[in-house]
Amino acid sequence: MTLQNDVFLRALLREPTPYTPVWLMRQAGRYLPEYRATRARAGDFLTLCKTPELATEVTLQPIDRFGLDAAILFSDILTVPDAMGLGLYFAEGEGPKFQRPLRDEAAIQALAAPDPTVELRYVMDAVRSIRRALGGRVPLIGFSGSPFTLACYMVEGGGSDDFRHIKTMLYRRPDLLHRILDVTARAVTDYLNAQIEAGAQAVMIFDTWGGTLTPHAYREFSLAYIARIVAGLTREAEGRRVPSIVFTKGGGLWLEAIAECGADAVGVDWTVSLGEARRRVGDRVALQGNLDPAALLGDAEAVRREAVRVLEAFGPGPGHVFNLGHGISQHVDPDNVAVLVETVHAFRHRGD
Amino acid sequence: MTLQNDVFLRALLREPTPYTPVWLMRQAGRYLPEYRATRARAGDFLTLCKTPELATEVTLQPIDRFGLDAAILFSDILTVPDAMGLGLYFAEGEGPKFQRPLRDEAAIQALAAPDPTVELRYVMDAVRSIRRALGGRVPLIGFSGSPFTLACYMVEGGGSDDFRHIKTMLYRRPDLLHRILDVTARAVTDYLNAQIEAGAQAVMIFDTWGGTLTPHAYREFSLAYIARIVAGLTREAEGRRVPSIVFTKGGGLWLEAIAECGADAVGVDWTVSLGEARRRVGDRVALQGNLDPAALLGDAEAVRREAVRVLEAFGPGPGHVFNLGHGISQHVDPDNVAVLVETVHAFRHRGD
Repeated sequence: MTLQNDVFLRALLREPTPYTPVWLMRQAGRYLPEYRATRARAGDFLTLCKTPELATEVTLQPIDRFGLDAAILFSDILTVPDAMGLGLYFAEGEGPKFQRPLRDEAAIQALAAPDPTVELRYVMDAVRSIRRALGGRVPLIGFSGSPFTLACYMVEGGGSDDFRHIKTMLYRRPDLLHRILDVTARAVTDYLNAQIEAGAQAVMIFDTWGGTLTPHAYREFSLAYIARIVAGLTREAEGRRVPSIVFTKGGGLWLEAIAECGADAVGVDWTVSLGEARRRVGDRVALQGNLDPAALLGDAEAVRREAVRVLEAFGPGPGHVFNLGHGISQHVDPDNVAVLVETVHAFRHRGD
Repeated sequence: MTLQNDVFLRALLREPTPYTPVWLMRQAGRYLPEYRATRARAGDFLTLCKTPELATEVTLQPIDRFGLDAAILFSDILTVPDAMGLGLYFAEGEGPKFQRPLRDEAAIQALAAPDPTVELRYVMDAVRSIRRALGGRVPLIGFSGSPFTLACYMVEGGGSDDFRHIKTMLYRRPDLLHRILDVTARAVTDYLNAQIEAGAQAVMIFDTWGGTLTPHAYREFSLAYIARIVAGLTREAEGRRVPSIVFTKGGGLWLEAIAECGADAVGVDWTVSLGEARRRVGDRVALQGNLDPAALLGDAEAVRREAVRVLEAFGPGPGHVFNLGHGISQHVDPDNVAVLVETVHAFRHRGD
C-alpha cells in the first residue's frame, strides 16, 4: 500500500519537507473522550494493550481527529519485562507494578530474552492490524523502552521517585545490572525488529529514566545499550529505510554523545532550546521535540505562541519533527491539540 | 568569636584552600539515628523546626559526627509561605501541604511579605542559638527556597509531579504568577538578610523546581527573581563578605546564565560533569557539588571512587565546595558519610 504522507519519515532522514511534521507522545490517551470510551469498553489498561482491535482503534483516534503526520503503536513500555515473566499489573491509581521485581542474583542469572513473535505476538498482531486500518495514510511508529528504563521498573518493581534499588545495584553490583541490561538489550532489539517485520515504518526508543544518572553512568548503563540496539536494527523494510529515534528525557546535557549512538533522530525534552541543540549536534541527526507539554494547559494564544517559539528556535532547513518534550497530559483540552497541529502545519520559516 | 575553620567561605570566594571543603545538603536528617531521636522527642517535624534548641541540636549533630566544614540552619523551605498565612502542615507520609493554596486572584493580590523578625522570629532565634552552640567551629549557612520553587508549593498546595496548576497559571495568567513571585522575592530577600543579621555567614537559595521550566520561562520566572534577591543581599557581616550560593536542580543546561546572576557560587546537580561545568562558567563563580546522592547507597569502595571522580572532574585550583547533587537519602548508612568526608579531606590534586 502506497504511503500517502511520508513527511515524517523524510524529516527524520533530514530530507526537505513542505512543512514541519508533527505527532505527540502519548497522543492516543486519556485527554481524548473517544479514548476514554474505548478504555472503558476494554475494562482495564492491559486488556486494551493486549487486544489488537482495541489497540488499533485508539491508535487511529488522534490521526482521525487531528490529521497528525504519524501514528504510534498503542502499547505499554513494560510489555517486554512482562514477557520475561515478571508479572506486570496495574494497581488502580498507582501506575505499573511487577509481581516479581528483579533483585536476587539467581533470578537475574535466569533472565532470558523472550521470542517476540510468540510471547509478544499480540503486539505484532496490533502492528499488522493498525497498518491495515491506516491504509497508508501516515507511517506507523513502533517503540520500546530503553534497557535502562525497563531495568528501573524491573528492579524497583514499579515506578519510583528515588530509584533506590537500581542505584544501589549500580553502585554495589554493577555486574548484575549489566547482566540485566545485556539480556534486555537483546530482547529490545528482537522486539523492535519484530515490529518492523510486522509493519512498523520507524522505531523509537524511550529512555525515560536515563536522565537520572551521572554523565559517566549514563554512557555506561544506558547509552551503550541503546547504541547496541540501534546497531542491530533492521535498516530497511518495504524498500524504504526505517528511521530510528532515541529519546532520553533529561538528556539535554549529553546531546553530542546521544547524537553519536547511530540513531537517525534524537528526541529532546523542553528544557533545551532546539536552536542550541541543533548547533550542538550539527547535521548528524534530525531532532524531535520539544514543546513543554504544560503549554497545552494554556489558552489557544499561548499554545500558538509557544509552538512558534519551538519552530523558530529550530530555524529553517530540514530535520525537525515537531513533538512535545514529554507525553501529553490527561488534563489537556483536545481543542488545544487542534490549535497546535494547525499552527505547526501552517508555519513557514522566513525564506522557505 | 573567631571562626576556626573558614575553608568553606574561602572556597566560595575562589580563594586557595588547603583541602576541598565538604558539607552535604540535608546533612541533618533522617539517616542519622541521633536525628531520629531528637525528631521523636519533638513529636512532629514542624515543632522541630520551630523550637530553636531542638533545631540547634540537629544542626550540630552531623558537625559533631563527621567534622564537616559548614553547618546549615535546620529549617524547612516553606517557612516563608507559612508566614504569609498559607497554613503549612505535614500530612504523615505525604510531604508538605498548605491549607490555603494560592489560586484565586483576590488572594494573590492580597499576598504580602511577612516581617521576618516577627513572623519568622523562631528562625532567627535558631540562627542565634546555632551560632552560640557552634562557638566558631565552622560557618553557618542560612537558606531559603527560590521564589519559583516556593510558588510551586504555594500554587499546587503541596508537592507535585506535574506542576499542573502553576504551569496553567504561567501559560494563562503570567501576570498573576509574576505578582506571586514579586512578593515572594521581596519576602525572601528580607528573610535572608534577617538570617545574616542574626548570624548566618553564607546563604544559599534552593531552586528545586526551576529545572522543570523551558529555558525561556526559567529566565523569566525563576532566575530573574533569584538575581533580584542576590542583588538585595547584605554583602558583609562581622567584617567579612557573606557569600551566596544559587542551586537550580536540573539547571545544568543553563549554567552560563545562572553564573551571571550575581551569586558567588553555583550549586550543580550530578547530571553535569564538574569539569565541563567549570569550563562553561570560567572564573565567574565557585561551584558546589555534585556527587550522585545514590552513590552513598554503594559500598565504601564505590563511595571513595565516585568522590574522587567528582574531585578529579573539577580539577586543581580554587573554587570547589564538595557536596551532593541533591539532599542525602534517609536510607544512607552514616558510615558511608564518614568515608566520604574522609576521602574528600584527604584528597590532594596532583601538583597541589
